[in-house]
Amino acid sequence: MKAIIISIGDEILIGQVLNTNAAYISEKLNGVGIEVSRILTVGDDEYEILKAFKEYYSRYDIIVVTGGLGPTHDDVTRSAVCKFFAVKLVSSNEVRNNVEEFLKKRNRKWSDAAENQILFPAGAKVIPNKYGTAAGEFFERDNKYFIVLPGVPYEMESMMEDFVVQFFRDKKMDRYILHRTLMTTGIAESELATRLGNLDNILQGAKLAFLPSPTGVRLRITISGTNKNQCENRIQTIETYIREKANKFIYGVDEESLEEVLGKILTERKLTIAIAESCTGGMIANKITNVPSSSSYLERAVTTYSNQSKIDLLNVPKNLIEMCGAVSKEVAEAMALGIRQNAGTDIGISTTGIAGPTGGTQEKPVGLVWIGYSDANKSSAQKFNFGDGRIRIKERTSQAAMEIVRRIILKIE
Amino acid sequence: MKAIIISIGDEILIGQVLNTNAAYISEKLNGVGIEVSRILTVGDDEYEILKAFKEYYSRYDIIVVTGGLGPTHDDVTRSAVCKFFAVKLVSSNEVRNNVEEFLKKRNRKWSDAAENQILFPAGAKVIPNKYGTAAGEFFERDNKYFIVLPGVPYEMESMMEDFVVQFFRDKKMDRYILHRTLMTTGIAESELATRLGNLDNILQGAKLAFLPSPTGVRLRITISGTNKNQCENRIQTIETYIREKANKFIYGVDEESLEEVLGKILTERKLTIAIAESCTGGMIANKITNVPSSSSYLERAVTTYSNQSKIDLLNVPKNLIEMCGAVSKEVAEAMALGIRQNAGTDIGISTTGIAGPTGGTQEKPVGLVWIGYSDANKSSAQKFNFGDGRIRIKERTSQAAMEIVRRIILKIE
Repeated sequence: MKAIIISIGDEILIGQVLNTNAAYISEKLNGVGIEVSRILTVGDDEYEILKAFKEYYSRYDIIVVTGGLGPTHDDVTRSAVCKFFAVKLVSSNEVRNNVEEFLKKRNRKWSDAAENQILFPAGAKVIPNKYGTAAGEFFERDNKYFIVLPGVPYEMESMMEDFVVQFFRDKKMDRYILHRTLMTTGIAESELATRLGNLDNILQGAKLAFLPSPTGVRLRITISGTNKNQCENRIQTIETYIREKANKFIYGVDEESLEEVLGKILTERKLTIAIAESCTGGMIANKITNVPSSSSYLERAVTTYSNQSKIDLLNVPKNLIEMCGAVSKEVAEAMALGIRQNAGTDIGISTTGIAGPTGGTQEKPVGLVWIGYSDANKSSAQKFNFGDGRIRIKERTSQAAMEIVRRIILKIE
Repeated sequence: MKAIIISIGDEILIGQVLNTNAAYISEKLNGVGIEVSRILTVGDDEYEILKAFKEYYSRYDIIVVTGGLGPTHDDVTRSAVCKFFAVKLVSSNEVRNNVEEFLKKRNRKWSDAAENQILFPAGAKVIPNKYGTAAGEFFERDNKYFIVLPGVPYEMESMMEDFVVQFFRDKKMDRYILHRTLMTTGIAESELATRLGNLDNILQGAKLAFLPSPTGVRLRITISGTNKNQCENRIQTIETYIREKANKFIYGVDEESLEEVLGKILTERKLTIAIAESCTGGMIANKITNVPSSSSYLERAVTTYSNQSKIDLLNVPKNLIEMCGAVSKEVAEAMALGIRQNAGTDIGISTTGIAGPTGGTQEKPVGLVWIGYSDANKSSAQKFNFGDGRIRIKERTSQAAMEIVRRIILKIE
């Protein structure tokens, strides 16, 4: 089964928006054994969209279209689809019910736009949209699947997951493309490659990709075949080999975030945590609170940007800041200790550094960061230099701070 | 002049990597008046690449190809190009000189890979690569431009900038494509469309696109023509018209973020701010501190997840929480007042709500949020319902909180 993704939207063609939808859809289709051969982007232009449908319909088994299903005049996908299949738009009760429920939940009134959104191509199956008013369209014809989804990422994603992926999973096609991603942090791509050495003998046709990002390198193993068990065993063998070489840097698998992993560790061990941030400016708290139920282990977090707030909220002695400077080992330790004691938690962590772009000196350059840690046994701080780029420095510091907690709790190293 | 971008690479087709190159190239071509009509991605497969060249060569004036020029076995673009134009690979002295210089600068030795990289399609012009060994290829034939660039982003970007953009700028094609984006928040796409009404008379061939996201709808005006001044005036007229209808929802232009806009407003007026977050869990602080120099107006921020931390850090009376609940108008107001007084700032803002997925009740469902505001004149709180999705609720609440501050300072409404 070969697929093409057709993305519709001027915003992609002019470079305003990255085509994240195509990447998401590719990955999900891969997950059910479907290979994506092409990704095409065309503009919000009915003639261009129709032309693309005509060119590609005969050549692929699965055509996934995203974008241009909204209620405004530049949304022309629905009418292009109707012309292509020579069907009419009809008022759909199923879509009406969904849209009514959606608006009701948000205390919004029925409008002309809503009335327009319930018009649906005759003969298509409705793909319900939990997060918006644009219904998805599912055509099964000529031994092909023609699927139309909105372009708003979270709407499209839930429709892919709940409907499209489910549909192809239920069809049980005997073709498997398996990926496993090992999430590493605290080690550079080249060091990781050296540590793993030559992998030809262990990979034997499987693929290993190194995907670097500011928070770490993802190692992605890919294998395809017709026997699922065999594929899984091969992946397991490769994973085991990699873990022997680099286990301490691997904090999770398959796009798990470090904050999710840390949340599980804290929950299992019934530990509580509090955070005192300076250079990360709330990023650690924000990441940790992205995880559901984080309120059970995060007691409080503070962003102490001013010296006074470090004194008020963390009991950092004023003369310590004057003597050592706010960006110092001593202040990082005092911050971690202070937040832990004030919050009454098991663990306290802290960050203080120069995020830039200004404020750096020869002695304390942009990128210099101290991360503090405190528990009942000890308070300590580690020095890092995270290069430049304000947000990259915040990202790297946040990841390193959470990794310090993970390694200390799990007694790694 | 119509262009197509052909991206080559399995990593894009499996969703491992976003096609940032296509976005970059589109934006640069737009900048010299060239419209990109399609973006196509195909895999590292010579047959597929050749097929794409054959399909599209006759239909576009400019074909820009990226990716697959490296020295390894999966790089097949160069041989596909030779087959397509029926030319041979020949050893190029110009490329040899460039590669030698590149390696010398990095203290790297000549290798078999380098020897391979100097083979170049006969008849093409060399696009020099400052940051790598893969030369770009430039064909000018049949009144068309066929341009082949490597896929490594920073190599491709410098070649686009130094050679391709320069080439088309020198051609002075007297064609302009101008964009202007108005950033709105606090209004749904459909309501915005209703408010703007029928725009045909004012647009007259210009395009207006609605781009919704969890934090607001961007309105993008696009116009193309041969007279730059005229285009600029037309955009200005349309912007003025839209502002007459919806000015209070427009916080910025051209991808400016609300936190940047708010930062400017606070700086100009020499106002300071402090933040007390519950349901947003540090997201507002994180956004605000992404802006350089935010330390000049953000005194402190706290994430008070526990009731005790609301009492300790914000002086919220214990019995108020017991009587009204932590998610209430009264507590939101007390939080905003408390953080302002403790921090000694001009403004205090607060958030308290149910971010879910658990913790909702019939009376206080997931998505219910109170946002508090306090300055020397008043303390108040507003109620919102932001639907579901934990991170989306955090996003929407953060944006709404910053927008409340913007509107109060600017006395909007």
